[in-house]
Amino acid sequence: MEHADRELTPLDELYLQRACELAARGIGSTAPNPPVGAVVVRDGRIVGEGYHHRAGDSHAETNALVQAGAAARGATIYVSLEPCRHAGRTPPCTHALARAGIVRVVAGTVDPTEHGGGAAELRRQGIETTIAGDPGARRLIEVFAQATRVTRPYVALKMAMSLDGAVASRAGTRERLGSAEEERYVRELRTQYDAVMVGAGTIRVDDPLLTVRPPHDRERPFVRVVACESGPISPRSRVFAAAAGYAPTVVLVPAGLRDRFAELDGAAELLAVGEPSATALDLRQAMKDLRAYGLVSVLCEGGPKLGASLLAAKAVDRVFWAIAPRFLNGEDAVRVLSGADLREVRFRFDRIERAGADVILSGPTQENDDV
Amino acid sequence: MEHADRELTPLDELYLQRACELAARGIGSTAPNPPVGAVVVRDGRIVGEGYHHRAGDSHAETNALVQAGAAARGATIYVSLEPCRHAGRTPPCTHALARAGIVRVVAGTVDPTEHGGGAAELRRQGIETTIAGDPGARRLIEVFAQATRVTRPYVALKMAMSLDGAVASRAGTRERLGSAEEERYVRELRTQYDAVMVGAGTIRVDDPLLTVRPPHDRERPFVRVVACESGPISPRSRVFAAAAGYAPTVVLVPAGLRDRFAELDGAAELLAVGEPSATALDLRQAMKDLRAYGLVSVLCEGGPKLGASLLAAKAVDRVFWAIAPRFLNGEDAVRVLSGADLREVRFRFDRIERAGADVILSGPTQENDDV
Repeated sequence: MEHADRELTPLDELYLQRACELAARGIGSTAPNPPVGAVVVRDGRIVGEGYHHRAGDSHAETNALVQAGAAARGATIYVSLEPCRHAGRTPPCTHALARAGIVRVVAGTVDPTEHGGGAAELRRQGIETTIAGDPGARRLIEVFAQATRVTRPYVALKMAMSLDGAVASRAGTRERLGSAEEERYVRELRTQYDAVMVGAGTIRVDDPLLTVRPPHDRERPFVRVVACESGPISPRSRVFAAAAGYAPTVVLVPAGLRDRFAELDGAAELLAVGEPSATALDLRQAMKDLRAYGLVSVLCEGGPKLGASLLAAKAVDRVFWAIAPRFLNGEDAVRVLSGADLREVRFRFDRIERAGADVILSGPTQENDDV
Repeated sequence: MEHADRELTPLDELYLQRACELAARGIGSTAPNPPVGAVVVRDGRIVGEGYHHRAGDSHAETNALVQAGAAARGATIYVSLEPCRHAGRTPPCTHALARAGIVRVVAGTVDPTEHGGGAAELRRQGIETTIAGDPGARRLIEVFAQATRVTRPYVALKMAMSLDGAVASRAGTRERLGSAEEERYVRELRTQYDAVMVGAGTIRVDDPLLTVRPPHDRERPFVRVVACESGPISPRSRVFAAAAGYAPTVVLVPAGLRDRFAELDGAAELLAVGEPSATALDLRQAMKDLRAYGLVSVLCEGGPKLGASLLAAKAVDRVFWAIAPRFLNGEDAVRVLSGADLREVRFRFDRIERAGADVILSGPTQENDDV
């Protein structure tokens, strides 16, 4: 119990919250690094603030220390994530903190990656260090912490349904299900991912823009992905419209059907998936291809067939399920998932939120394929 | 603003919570009265406690005042529900409080029925009176406050489903969906209602006992109701087994098919619903018949056909929807609701709870038929 974490005071928690607020400014821009924020407090006064702007730039701690200057000596630093102890493109933050004369470090959450271990290093250097285990801080790095796979992206599946499990009263119709608040929630959610993905059916029926509205400037262009089988999609679909801040839309097609999608050339980035003879989309291979393409995290927003196929392929790491307070019951209703036996899929609910009239249940899947 | 409610102190809230705890002891025994609890506090000490045991017995306030005796003079009383001002089978509590010398009343919630108005009456008598608007206190009287219809019972519909809206992978099979905590939640929920109701299909497939496990002695026998169409159910179904504390099980059958259910005579109380020629169960008429039978509140626990029919008949006042973290997707899956167009049904979620691994969404329906 040598390094037992000291209890946080309400004031500590306030500063930590401020560090998390600062961190959030980097969401969407820091990948593959996590968003991190830091606050330096000396004698009950904030003397420095900073956050990580984007990969390659200086870390949050350094930015806050620079602002604090000499006032950092004897100060406490609140940082949303455990400081790194490894030299990467920038020197280790643990050194910088010690050199600046910081006497106490309060970190929002542990760094679960190979960059972790900073707290132990700081303690070795005689700096009192507390890991708060703060839920807000954990959430900030959720996608980053999970997106450590080298073979496929971290994939979250987001679906919206009526309380009786349907997305529309009949095939081919678009039903406005979610509240305005739910739509806002999803736009916010997208900012945490490298890309959003939907199936071709969603493009045909809903013709969505799949835009992302960050509360800040986004450094990395946002990628939109469309997963196709054999059916055609129009090159005039709104998702292909060029826009500032967006990378060209990626279209996944079975390699054997590449020619059918020729008219998308120019409008989109076609990825031919699988063997040259493949006529069905191999989703496991498609995810590998997306990772190779540079996507570390993907938010899939349906539809029912793509969602079920991803779950069946054990390629989903987290589900977000928006439930609207209405029923779409009927023989023709389109079910929220279709076409695959998912009885073996296990997950749990670790987060329950409201978005207007809707409720959003969310949680990680279990025993997923990590290969 | 003459009677502006004074802010409650944390201590006030503690005493009020105690009053609610006492009230809960009466759940299941007080109908048609609500459960009510009361605590008398004088000089920072509890000098009397009481709760309403059952209809016809003395009220919570009286019981607490009796225990307090002379110590009630100058005391504050905390009562879970606004004291009554009408003489019924017992004298009005407002009089009793004034006579005992109570100087301050803190009530958990307003009495929304025709018995309400006690707070105004107390203030007229110079007693400082606060209505706390406490959610726990409101919940205690929820069923009571709603069950004011004279034409049909207050009906809550409770369903359990997978996240993709199914109750079983195929017809005729029983799937264990909910967690043990969810089952406990439902047993607790039943205690607040006069009766639990299921469809004949549920009896055939699940053969449930539909028991209620009150955390206290129950004064009023619990009623189990089975809604039948033309299909037979076995008189050896477990729901018909006689048990202490249970009234005979009520079976609703279309009047024209009464003879088909002859072998249930003796085992159950048959209610023949509708015109003598009726061969389908008229649920609106069935609800009227249950009210005439003496049931003021009913918790319907499915299955999918009865649930959908009740919703379509606009005979549901509140939904409870338990959602398990799994999928039952497949062509043969049994949907949580079936056989009726429910797109016009409106409700909202006013309560979100966890029960083990499951999440329970609940809320009142809107614009329901009150006739």
